Amino acid sequence: MPKTQPAASKAAKPNSTRARILAAARSLFNRDGERNVTTNHIAASLNISPGNLYYYFRNKSDILLELYSVHRDRMLAMLSLPPQTPFSIALKAELMAKLAQAMWEDRYIYRDLEHILSASDAIATLHQQTFHAVFAKTLELHTALEQAGLIVATPREQRDLTYNAWIILTNWIGFLRTTAQVDVGDEASQALINRGVYQVLALEKAFMTAEARAQVDAWADRYYTALDELHEPDHAH
Amino acid sequence: MPKTQPAASKAAKPNSTRARILAAARSLFNRDGERNVTTNHIAASLNISPGNLYYYFRNKSDILLELYSVHRDRMLAMLSLPPQTPFSIALKAELMAKLAQAMWEDRYIYRDLEHILSASDAIATLHQQTFHAVFAKTLELHTALEQAGLIVATPREQRDLTYNAWIILTNWIGFLRTTAQVDVGDEASQALINRGVYQVLALEKAFMTAEARAQVDAWADRYYTALDELHEPDHAH
Repeated sequence: MPKTQPAASKAAKPNSTRARILAAARSLFNRDGERNVTTNHIAASLNISPGNLYYYFRNKSDILLELYSVHRDRMLAMLSLPPQTPFSIALKAELMAKLAQAMWEDRYIYRDLEHILSASDAIATLHQQTFHAVFAKTLELHTALEQAGLIVATPREQRDLTYNAWIILTNWIGFLRTTAQVDVGDEASQALINRGVYQVLALEKAFMTAEARAQVDAWADRYYTALDELHEPDHAH
Repeated sequence: MPKTQPAASKAAKPNSTRARILAAARSLFNRDGERNVTTNHIAASLNISPGNLYYYFRNKSDILLELYSVHRDRMLAMLSLPPQTPFSIALKAELMAKLAQAMWEDRYIYRDLEHILSASDAIATLHQQTFHAVFAKTLELHTALEQAGLIVATPREQRDLTYNAWIILTNWIGFLRTTAQVDVGDEASQALINRGVYQVLALEKAFMTAEARAQVDAWADRYYTALDELHEPDHAH
């Protein structure tokens, strides 16, 4: 069995030790940052021995790889169009809600992406494959929006838009950190994660027809939070 | 004198040793990646002793800080509107050309941004100030485009657009690396840097009036290069 795949015989069942290790790791990564959490921290938070943890996972990279895979599968599932359903703004709203929630629940992946990819060749390779799969599915969504008469965009513009959406979403948390030293460890930062989802909507809205825009405007503000205070020069100097 | 400022008495004159050190460092950073270049490499490439280099710069961070400052000043100068000049698509074309050239000539900054910021508090602080200054100037440009009747965007949309433009441009090279293992060390990669500038144009074009778009379409393709081959699944698997 390739070492990058989780062992089927140790597959996670709810409340199994394996599942509890994954849940604790994710929670600590989100709160403290992936770089600052060791397997010892994870074991200690569960009151288990490091040896017990190592029975399930060889090292931190193995835990990260499995958590990344689960996040990837979740993103791909939400981006999959229901067969033969014409696209609608209601479907778009549902997708944005799921996207914001998924980013929030695995925000450490976006916060520490560069570090995670540089520390694990297996995750770096999987991330490239994830890009291909997410790109293809997001492009399908933009094409479906165009076919439903909700956006006006040529095939090339649909591709340009799809690249930009990926870049904005995957780098949103890095943007908050590098421009305003924002850490997204605490619960209060969920609004800032949502603003990243809003930025993608702002990108797509520019291509929307007046009718589609009016429908989007009715709910887009739930993802909007002002950043002005965050970026006030007084805070940074 | 604060240690983050270059000493005036050692200011760079063309062909001075100080200026040659800066030029050599920039060239090596661009070719080999900032992480892989030491002060010894820089001294060796100039056939000077490390001691001679240390007379001008305390360490690699000091060199990076000065190069970063020069790049920052260059970006801010190009983003400054000529006083009382109404905005035009010709001005926009000129700006895009300067932007693409500046990104190309200091591409190592964008390639290794996370590493550079994490290694130097002085540069991290300066980067935050750079964001504020670039944001203000880019927002002025988007407002001028709107006032000239070239784009249609509300004040909030102008801000959303400005955030997205910064994120796409500063993360473009990271996007190439994380999704396709592209290194931009060699001269052949200039087209890929230009594509990042095109992506910002694609973002702005969605807000343009039909007349402005038609003018932009006449020259935008000089920044376009197809990415399909780069992202062919066969390359990544």
